[in-house]
Amino acid sequence: MTTATTPEETDLPELERTLGAAREAAGPLAALRPSERALLLRAAADALDAATEELVSLAESETALPRPRLTGEVGRSSGQLRMFAAALEDGGYLEPVIDTATENGRPDLRRMLVPLGPVVVFGASNFPFAFSVPGGDTASALAAGCPVVVKAHPGHPRLSERIGELLAGALRASGAPEGALAVVHGQDAGLRALTDPRVKAATFTGSAAGGKALLDAVNSRPDPIPFYGELGSLNPVFVTPAALRARGPEIVDGYVASFTLGAGQFCTKPGLLFLPSGHGERQRIVDAVERSAPAAMLNERIRDAYAAERERLTTVPGMRVLATGAPADERVPATLLETTVPELLANSDSALTECFGPTSIVVTYENLAELREAAEAFTGNLTATLHCEAEQLSDPDNEVVPPLLEVLRERVGRVVFNGWPTGVAVTAAMHHGGPHPATTGSVHTSVGTTALRRFLRPVCFQSTPQPLLPEELADHNPLGLPRLVDGERSTSPVRRPL
Amino acid sequence: MTTATTPEETDLPELERTLGAAREAAGPLAALRPSERALLLRAAADALDAATEELVSLAESETALPRPRLTGEVGRSSGQLRMFAAALEDGGYLEPVIDTATENGRPDLRRMLVPLGPVVVFGASNFPFAFSVPGGDTASALAAGCPVVVKAHPGHPRLSERIGELLAGALRASGAPEGALAVVHGQDAGLRALTDPRVKAATFTGSAAGGKALLDAVNSRPDPIPFYGELGSLNPVFVTPAALRARGPEIVDGYVASFTLGAGQFCTKPGLLFLPSGHGERQRIVDAVERSAPAAMLNERIRDAYAAERERLTTVPGMRVLATGAPADERVPATLLETTVPELLANSDSALTECFGPTSIVVTYENLAELREAAEAFTGNLTATLHCEAEQLSDPDNEVVPPLLEVLRERVGRVVFNGWPTGVAVTAAMHHGGPHPATTGSVHTSVGTTALRRFLRPVCFQSTPQPLLPEELADHNPLGLPRLVDGERSTSPVRRPL
Repeated sequence: MTTATTPEETDLPELERTLGAAREAAGPLAALRPSERALLLRAAADALDAATEELVSLAESETALPRPRLTGEVGRSSGQLRMFAAALEDGGYLEPVIDTATENGRPDLRRMLVPLGPVVVFGASNFPFAFSVPGGDTASALAAGCPVVVKAHPGHPRLSERIGELLAGALRASGAPEGALAVVHGQDAGLRALTDPRVKAATFTGSAAGGKALLDAVNSRPDPIPFYGELGSLNPVFVTPAALRARGPEIVDGYVASFTLGAGQFCTKPGLLFLPSGHGERQRIVDAVERSAPAAMLNERIRDAYAAERERLTTVPGMRVLATGAPADERVPATLLETTVPELLANSDSALTECFGPTSIVVTYENLAELREAAEAFTGNLTATLHCEAEQLSDPDNEVVPPLLEVLRERVGRVVFNGWPTGVAVTAAMHHGGPHPATTGSVHTSVGTTALRRFLRPVCFQSTPQPLLPEELADHNPLGLPRLVDGERSTSPVRRPL
Repeated sequence: MTTATTPEETDLPELERTLGAAREAAGPLAALRPSERALLLRAAADALDAATEELVSLAESETALPRPRLTGEVGRSSGQLRMFAAALEDGGYLEPVIDTATENGRPDLRRMLVPLGPVVVFGASNFPFAFSVPGGDTASALAAGCPVVVKAHPGHPRLSERIGELLAGALRASGAPEGALAVVHGQDAGLRALTDPRVKAATFTGSAAGGKALLDAVNSRPDPIPFYGELGSLNPVFVTPAALRARGPEIVDGYVASFTLGAGQFCTKPGLLFLPSGHGERQRIVDAVERSAPAAMLNERIRDAYAAERERLTTVPGMRVLATGAPADERVPATLLETTVPELLANSDSALTECFGPTSIVVTYENLAELREAAEAFTGNLTATLHCEAEQLSDPDNEVVPPLLEVLRERVGRVVFNGWPTGVAVTAAMHHGGPHPATTGSVHTSVGTTALRRFLRPVCFQSTPQPLLPEELADHNPLGLPRLVDGERSTSPVRRPL
């Protein structure tokens, strides 16, 4: 097995072969029927599930993430591949539209979506499966019909290499063209791939600084390509006085559990909790943090970066350390900071930055005007959370929350009520994205079925003879696709006057 | 009337007021129901139609475009506003998706699209209506719920100013917030608007050089925004030997009519015609070009730029002047150049550039291998056209055309069969776009209903109390929208277990 040793950085000849193979695979992969590509995705999902044991052990050895979490992540990834397979089987994602010729001379026009071509996926550190080699970006790009070159995250290179072998093997065995999926290693290989003319789109999940560097590289191309970067998020949580009165202990416990989950290494970690000043839950929060178990971070580099960032945050004016957990071995304890809205706003540049790890800030507010002012200080975020009492029209927060919600929905991709932002369900209604700096492409999502759309572009066929039309657009609708025909949604053949 | 004199360049205080008003308008405009925004668009369309006479006269005085063409363009623009109004009334463009909570703990998730915020539209020179102040970009952005600031093209500033007054007045009178539409003048104002943090997206139709300058400005922002630029296209036409045998004279006449239409000032002008070498139509083409009427170009600046570009093209090695029309006054004659595929390929960098005006190139090929090689030399284009005989499976071109089509559909946004690329129908199935350098955002279209999508981003509401949900996502579906509810398309209320 080639995974016994850490794979070397991909050298130039190897990268050239990889990109050449991806380019060669683009045509054949695009030419497969959606239902045929669905089989490829299902084969990849099965291969992933069958190797769970081996892959989880490998991931454990590289990432320090606990076994149950890793096992769950494999299931999430294979489930995601199957979700896209189902979208392909439905076929509606192709958005086929047919406008037949009119008597006043408008020609027959037929439009569908086609794949962009090879995609480079930059794997994430914190999800070695679900946002890495077998993750949502890979699954959606392959589903769209685009060959994928994954740039492995250096935090789990052997796992990435092994999954690459497994998936490439499964894809090949079920009829995918050679070159449909490959894994490369090393920053240089990633940057070169990103600026290679054969590459037509790229995705990234990671830090704001890393994303900015890649975006600059994309912008240096003579031909701009879509770059879908997810760069970071603070995920503020706002608690109304009424919610705190009704559910104070539950909210406090939920908060500490959410910001310490996975050692705080989630892009949706709640980074700030806004509580009314003089709230009575101070001791309960301190106890919960002090009781929280120290947790191993993904790797040493990330632990060091976290320690530095945590240290920096504690020196922001007005920031006080409210509680810390007990340290143990190499594991890091949770840290809870405290400040007030005026102090936060006076230092927003230094205080409102992501801290990747189990640190969060309790911010106390005096009144609702302060709460709203604080909400307005945020730029783009993946999520915002509101704890309030507004189930019924008569509930106290039904006057209070709407103006706050108006501020927040302009700034975030997902608004969570009376829950926690960690945990991103893979479903059609999910949106994982948000205005910059949460992402570089706020009109798109990286989770859910419409993630496919990032890798597709429309093509219109005008007055095209039936034998030359893609079968998706042919009169007799051989694939039984849901199509918009002369304004009506239909799976029937097109009936045209002779 | 303020339009008697040419409007001055927008100064800084005026620009500041304009952008401030656009920012202020964003919330109220987004808060209108889709059907209410539809009324605004219809009012704008009516105002445009009612002023046709006045506006066409103004346009005539500034652009040298003929009256019938201008009159048609007003109708095209008002028709486009009404098409988007109809899309709003349908409401499906919001893509509402509801996944209700599951027994295994997945929360209730509801997703819809919301407007991005203020959009800057850079008006085009060649369509003073349909791609300028009242054009498709403005119509689709307003429809999406985004305030629009149009940077007027300097080729028709008085017309732009006047239409801005008219539309802003019509919008205001029908309930739009102040600041929903404004027009600014001058390159400096345009660039400042493009980099202003209040602006959330921008569109442009014009030259590759102009688009690149704006894209660089966008990329200099700390927060990247979507920039939808349409930069230029060569629109090659390929004629098979069988098609030429069957319809030679018709093809030749259609070609000359298409490349001289509107003095060749269309982004879809056929820039090259590929004919089999030794074809018998040489004299007919020469005659058609020599007979073609000289045409006035939009303005002096464009005429001078065209003369220089035409001159440059004639000096490309291997390029011969095949025919020219007779010059007359300030009007320009058509120019037809001729070369061969090997000569073209040997000089592709200098030969394959857009010439904005009534010049085109006949390229002769020896065999189908040459034709395919020529097709592969093209980068992104708005259109490619094929003249072939392939209506029936037994037709001669049914073996010849598919490989050529495969090359072309990878490179263009629209493939036209046995017709001409000029003339872009405004319909759901149209795609006006294409890979770079045709556009900077190939996953989107600038014509047709889905042009809306450029200005919308998803927001997901998790576990949101009914009183706080946007009505588009409320259980009882008060707007009667087509929604995807737990995987089923439905306009019914959501039924949930108590």
